[in-house]
This record gives sequence, C-alpha cells and structure tokens, in this order.
Amino acid sequence: MPQLGFLHGRAWAALLGQLRRPPGAVCIGAVRSHSQVAEATLASQLKPHKEKPNFILKTPKGTRDFSPQQMVVREKILDMVVSCFKRHGAKRLDTPAFELKEMLTERYGEDSGLIYDLKDQGGELLSLRYDLTVPFARYLAMNKVKKMKRYHVGKVWRRESPTIVQGRYREFCQCDFDIAGHFDPMIPDAECVKIMCEILSGLQLGDFLIKVNDRRLLDGIFAVCGVPESKFHAICSSVDKLDKMSWKDVRHEMVAKRGLAPEVADRIGDYVQCHGGVSLVEDMLQDPELSRNKQALEGLGDLKLLFDYLTLFGIAEKISFDLSLARGLDYYTGVIYEAVLLQTPAQAGEEPLNVGSVAAGGRYDGLVGMFDPKGHTVPCVGLSIGVERIFSIVEQRMKTFGEKIRTTETQVFVATPQKNFLRERLKLIAELWDAGIKAELMYKNNPKLLTQLHYSEDMGIPLVVIIGEQELKEGFIKLRSVASREEVAIKRENLVAEIQKRLSES
Amino acid sequence: MPQLGFLHGRAWAALLGQLRRPPGAVCIGAVRSHSQVAEATLASQLKPHKEKPNFILKTPKGTRDFSPQQMVVREKILDMVVSCFKRHGAKRLDTPAFELKEMLTERYGEDSGLIYDLKDQGGELLSLRYDLTVPFARYLAMNKVKKMKRYHVGKVWRRESPTIVQGRYREFCQCDFDIAGHFDPMIPDAECVKIMCEILSGLQLGDFLIKVNDRRLLDGIFAVCGVPESKFHAICSSVDKLDKMSWKDVRHEMVAKRGLAPEVADRIGDYVQCHGGVSLVEDMLQDPELSRNKQALEGLGDLKLLFDYLTLFGIAEKISFDLSLARGLDYYTGVIYEAVLLQTPAQAGEEPLNVGSVAAGGRYDGLVGMFDPKGHTVPCVGLSIGVERIFSIVEQRMKTFGEKIRTTETQVFVATPQKNFLRERLKLIAELWDAGIKAELMYKNNPKLLTQLHYSEDMGIPLVVIIGEQELKEGFIKLRSVASREEVAIKRENLVAEIQKRLSES
Repeated sequence: MPQLGFLHGRAWAALLGQLRRPPGAVCIGAVRSHSQVAEATLASQLKPHKEKPNFILKTPKGTRDFSPQQMVVREKILDMVVSCFKRHGAKRLDTPAFELKEMLTERYGEDSGLIYDLKDQGGELLSLRYDLTVPFARYLAMNKVKKMKRYHVGKVWRRESPTIVQGRYREFCQCDFDIAGHFDPMIPDAECVKIMCEILSGLQLGDFLIKVNDRRLLDGIFAVCGVPESKFHAICSSVDKLDKMSWKDVRHEMVAKRGLAPEVADRIGDYVQCHGGVSLVEDMLQDPELSRNKQALEGLGDLKLLFDYLTLFGIAEKISFDLSLARGLDYYTGVIYEAVLLQTPAQAGEEPLNVGSVAAGGRYDGLVGMFDPKGHTVPCVGLSIGVERIFSIVEQRMKTFGEKIRTTETQVFVATPQKNFLRERLKLIAELWDAGIKAELMYKNNPKLLTQLHYSEDMGIPLVVIIGEQELKEGFIKLRSVASREEVAIKRENLVAEIQKRLSES
Repeated sequence: MPQLGFLHGRAWAALLGQLRRPPGAVCIGAVRSHSQVAEATLASQLKPHKEKPNFILKTPKGTRDFSPQQMVVREKILDMVVSCFKRHGAKRLDTPAFELKEMLTERYGEDSGLIYDLKDQGGELLSLRYDLTVPFARYLAMNKVKKMKRYHVGKVWRRESPTIVQGRYREFCQCDFDIAGHFDPMIPDAECVKIMCEILSGLQLGDFLIKVNDRRLLDGIFAVCGVPESKFHAICSSVDKLDKMSWKDVRHEMVAKRGLAPEVADRIGDYVQCHGGVSLVEDMLQDPELSRNKQALEGLGDLKLLFDYLTLFGIAEKISFDLSLARGLDYYTGVIYEAVLLQTPAQAGEEPLNVGSVAAGGRYDGLVGMFDPKGHTVPCVGLSIGVERIFSIVEQRMKTFGEKIRTTETQVFVATPQKNFLRERLKLIAELWDAGIKAELMYKNNPKLLTQLHYSEDMGIPLVVIIGEQELKEGFIKLRSVASREEVAIKRENLVAEIQKRLSES
C-alpha cells in the first residue's frame, strides 16, 4: 500500500506524529477548531467596539480563515490525495464557483434549500456550487465529452444550520475523483473503492472499513417488501439514517412519518439490518423473492463482481456489504460506498468514538442525461474524500501531541553583528535568491545579532550566514549551523556552493 | 536570476517552447481563449434545445471551465509563482470566498458597484471577495497580528462589463504576496519589486519593465500645481488612464469632467509625462517648488532609497521611475509599482503589441487601521501577479507552436493480447499502484492489443506492461518502451523493480 513514499515520507510522519489516540482526547465527532484564529475571532466579537461600534470584525457565519499552521496541514493532506488521483491517471478540471441557478435546482432533493443564491444584480440568476459532481455532469454534457477520468479539488458552499460544533462548515473543500464513460461493469467502480483505500491507508488515520451497497438492490428490497414505488425515495432517506439512529427509531419514522404499514417496515428491517462479506451476497441471491426482482438481481450481480475485483486488488478484508447504507443524494443509480474510520477506545470503559464517514461515492448513470439537450447519458462513477473531517482529525492529533509545524521553508537567514551593514546584507541575500536559495533577513537597518539568531532558531531555519566587517575584508563569510551552533568561515566566492551542498545533504 | 531550476526546468522549457513571438501571432492584448471548451460552449448556445427548450447549457457570463490542458499550464505557472513567494519566506493564508458585505463597502472607490452580493436568505449580508488585500487587512485586524509575511492564491470575483474579448473575466485567480509590520523604510518594498522581477524572469515571458512612482509624490505634485485637495483622488484616477489614453485626452478629462483650470492641468502635464531613472529623482529633489512640499519630499526620499536597494539587488536596469503611474485603487499610501511586458514587433512594419500590466502593487499603510476597532494601524506593502494574463500569453504561445501537453502523469499502461485476462491485469495493476507507480488499464474485459498500444502512444505513457498467457506460465512479463517500441521479457517478480529503475533513469 503506498503510504509515505510519495510526499516526503519523513516530513509527513513528523507532521502526523504518533497517530494513536491518547487517553482523554476529544471525541472526533465533536472536534472544534481551537486555533489562535478562532479564539481571536471570539475575543473580537465579545469585545466592545468603542470607536467603530457598528463594525463587527468577523468572518461570515460557518466560515473561517485558515492560519499558516492550518494551511501547512491542509496542503500536505491535499497533496497526498491528489497524488493518489494522479496515480490512477486522472486529469484535473476546474469549474466556476457559481453556476446558473437552474443547473442546481432539483438535483439535491430535500437539501436544495441549503444552496447559496447570489443577489439578482441584473443578468443571470446564479448560485454557489453545492458540490463538484453536478458541475462535472454539466461540463460533460456541455462539451459533449463521452469519456473522462478527472479529479477536482475545490470549495463548495452549503447553508447548513449552525452545527459548526460538529465540525461542519458552510464553506468547505471537496476532493472528487470520477470516471465517466461506457465501460464493462464494475471495473471503474472497483478502482474508485481502491482509491479510497489507498488514500485512507496513506494518510495513516487508523483502521477503516468501506461499506458497500447498491441502490437497485435497495429498490428491489423495497418492492419485494411491498413499499409503493412513489415512496422509494422517502424510505431510502429513512434507511440512510441508520448510521445515526436505531432501527426502532427509523422504523417509527417509516410508519408514523412516511405512512408505511408496520409489517412492511418490519420486512424492510429484516433486510437492512444485515451486513457481511461476499457470502451475504451469495445468500441474498438465493432469496426466493429477491431473486425474482430484476433490480435486486442486477445489484447483487454487480456487487458479486465488485467483491471479485476488490479481492484481486487485495482489499477484500476492508469491505463490508452493508444493507443499511443508502447515501442521501438523489442521483445515485447503482453501487454506493462509504468509508468510516474505526477507532477502538484507548482505554477500557471509555465510550466508543463517534467517527463519521471520511469518504464516499457511487454510481450515477442518469445525471449527465439530465443536462444533455437530447438526453444522451454518460454513465459515471466517482468518490469524494471528506478532507475537512480529515483535516480536523489530523489537527486535533497534532495539538494533542503539541507538535510544532514550520510554516515557512526558509533555508538561510542572512545576519550581521555590524552596524550599517544593510547594503552588504541586501547584496548577499539577492545572490542567494538568484541561486534559488530560500532566504530571509531582518527589515531593520541595525538589528541586534541576538535577535537575528533567536528568530532563526524560532523559525527552524537551518543555516545562518553572518557577515562581519573583518571577515568580509579578508574575503570570508561565517556560516552557522543553527542546530549545532557550529560556525565556520567560508570563502566569499564559495558561499553559495557550500550552502547548496549542505542543503542537499540535510 | 532563478529560472528553471526550481520546477522541472526541462519540462517547463518544453511546455513553453520557443518563446519568441512568431510573425503573425495574435496581439496579446486581445488574446481570446479559443479552447475546445469555449467553442463547445458557443456551439451549445447556438444549438436549439429541442427536448429541453428552457435549458441553456453554459457557464455564467464572464466565467469559464478550465480543461485539463489549461489546468496543466495554470498549475505550472502557479507553482513557479508560489515557489518564489516561499523563497522569500512567506507563509500561506486562506480566507473565505465571501465576506460580510460591510467589510468590502467603501474600500474600492468607483469600482464598488462591481462587487457580487449574495442574496439575503436570512442572516448576514454577504459579498464575494473582490481582491485578496482587503481580506488580508481584515485578518490582521481581527487577529491583532502586527507582523506577517504571507502569500495567498485564490479566486476573486468582479462584475466587470462584458469585456471578455480583452481577456477579462468575472471570476479570476489572484496571487498576492504582502509584508505587514513596522520596519525600516523601503526594505520590504524593495523585496516586493525584486519578487516581481524574479517571477517575470523565471516565467521567461520576454523583456519587461517595472514602473515605480509614489502616491505622496503625486499628491505633492497636485498640491504644487494648484489642484484643490478635494480633487486629488479624481485627478489621480485621470492620471491613471495615461497608459491607455494620450495626454491630450487625459487633459481634456481633467478640464471638462473634473473641472480643473487648463493652466493647472498643463502644469500637471509637465510633471506626469516625465519618466527616467534615479537621476530623475535627483532632478525632482532640486525642483524649487516640489522640494518645499512635505509629501513630495517624503515620496522622493523613499524613491531614492528604493533605487539604492534595487541597485544592490542588481535589478536597477529593469526599473523606470514613471510619473504617470497612479494605480487605480484607493488604499495606496506610498510607493506604487507595476510591471509591463515589453515586446517589440517581430517584423518591421508590424504595429507594436498592446501588452498590459502583468504584476503590480504598492504600499497601503492605512487599510488595517480602517478595520481595527481602535484604529491601530499596521503598515503593509505587497504585490499581485496578474496570472490570468500570464496564462493567456503562455496558452496563446503554446497554441501558436502547436505544443502537445500531457494532461496525465501515467507512467505504465497494463495491457494484454489475451482474451479473458482482466483478472491478471487487475492483480498486476494493483501491485503497481501499491508500489506508487502511476498506472492505467482499459476498463474492458477484452480490449484489442492495438487499441491499448495506441492509447499509450496518444497519451504519452512511456512504458507498457504486456501480460501474455505463455510468458505468464513461464514466469515472465513483457515490458515495452513506447518510444523505441522495444520489448523485453522481465521476470515476474522483478517487474516492479525494473519499472522503478527505468522511471528513475528517464
């Protein structure tokens, strides 16, 4: 399983540190971002504004700034995700932050109310994108693209109710990988599941499980149990809640809210509470009623094939056929999957962690056809990595272990103990920059040497060049290793080469 | 000057190809994106939609999708820009796509009407960000940050009138670098100008010039010429048009529209039509009237220091002190600068190219104080790289030279001439992925060998693994070099190592 090799393995390991959950760590489902920024925001909101009382200094509700520390973590994680997408031959695509409003309406079922609309300032009616899947389908239809493997990393916006406490924001990043085109069954689908595995293994987030199911199978089960077809979507939404609610409560919703006969609900319950491996697929293929339902048979046949391919990929033990998996979005038409982190409590007696889904996806064969003027379809299958949740988990762990992150990559600090040596420092640092060396100096005419050395230590800069009057006259410059505090005099003309040598060795 | 060393020099050179403008190339000022996407958009707009007549399949006005080809170019350019920002010790920051509406109002002078507002859906009134500078100032004030060197790459949105023909979009990317904090004069300012030089040299866009001026000097000139203080901003806006309009037309605007006395306009004209090197600064310091104006003196003193530092950086010959440079934005308070590409016509008799500004910035010492509840200021200086214009130029050149871009990074294609060999291909490709090798296969049960080899050639994939029945029985796999069409049999267990060896050599 590719893990650290791709992106500075050691650096990543250092960044993540020990990844076991320590005793007393906060429940991940309720991770909060306690960054300096967030605290400062709160402080500024509580503080009375004397001079400018009408001005509340904050970011919009449900959004946040990302500090340099947070950006370092985010970029490392995104780099790993993208490198996996590239390993599977995907091309990158980008679409505008907003779409024509009509592109998004009626795509998201009950959640359509969460779409951000732009103000009508004359011209077209626009909405911020709600996910990256609908813009992708619009792109395929608009450009008559029949085949494409693409990834897309970008922000999406949803007017969620104020549940920021649970780590849900109104602006968040999505990382999507999708395969569009007519292909032989389950080959791209299996690759999508493989990709989720590679990413979660590579990020070293701990043990995980990928639940799989099929929308056609669920429809078949509903039909066999006697659910009227008009209620399939509603009942599917109820089933989708089984990861957060007990069967008893879901059953109650089906009967009381959705108007299902109690015995129909009970029959559904017998099915959707099942989970297992490929043998459960075999068992269900023997079910006398299901095996007569075309939809169910198609779903089960594809699931069997999927298990076969995932076994060849060596990841069958990560897969659970779980009939309670329904996925909220309307547009899925076939196989669906969702990855959840498994974390056992660090100590006996602690309650199990509430760890949600960190990646999910499925097949949506009808979406492109909804955009195409002639209704031509392009079958698609894809996945989305829940990077925001992953960011929270990694940030929380780093905080727990008190890890220090470098937010710059500066390699050399240019210092002097001399007064009026700014010109010499400027000349020398330009030489370093022009040689491609990452270098900084103090923006002061006469900084103190100690201040300059302290700054280099604090920022984790490995080398300091010290320009002294006497040495300079003799054609030498001092080079100091910050870690060892060792200083050596280098011939002025050899300085750049010596620095490059040291940096390539470290 | 660092150029290609940082980011796969050869690949970049190959991407850019010959960068001289060939005879007959299109005027860059009017570059249009004639990508397949744009053409397809047009086609779909023109086409009658029979089945779904109410549905126009397009992106919002002034926005566009970026195809994989475009994304490759964009990412290469952004990588180069960001690597320069990092070389100068900057940290990365990110802010939300939208801000509270009140944060943005009264920051952009006459252009405030171009701000996109979000619809009032209950809750706060929001607007899409118009640039990255105001969110940065808001961040500093909100978090009481007194000192920071940060970069920010992100999209901004402006409701420009339909001038897409000129390469202006309503959604576009900005790359900003800023230094906030109280420092000794002109040191950070000089670094900003140096950064613009490094980026433009590194991108190899051809010769360029950086115009510098100072807002205080302009104010001093206006005062000395007899402009009433209430008209300083308006007159400054007129001067700003000198890069697109003749002095005669600008003079007419000053007199007819801004109500200036003709002799006052003429006096301004004597000044703002000057440009030169550091000697012009010296000359103006001798100007009997200007040298009695405090603002003008401060501006000239700083410009002199700036020239001194830029000479130490070795870039003085790229700098032009240009009194017509005014910069549109309200918030500048000191030195301002703007980089323009210089392109001489390829052939005598051709008209000179209309090449606009590709980078610009300046000092804005008052902006943070406008956000701070107590009015505490944090002086700032920064720059913004006009990456969209740079993207257009590079794309146009690549099209002119017919360069082919690889949109994937796939290293190995897994093929077979055998029927019913999907399982073997899946097993083998999983092994490659797990070893970190970028690999693809056809999503078909029985693809033709020729189709598989053609695909590899078309996509520029360097190696093909060919699984044959006979070889597999004997424990061998064929490895084909696409370029030389040479095939060698490799022991099955040595395949991954051999592929890695070949990839590391190429």
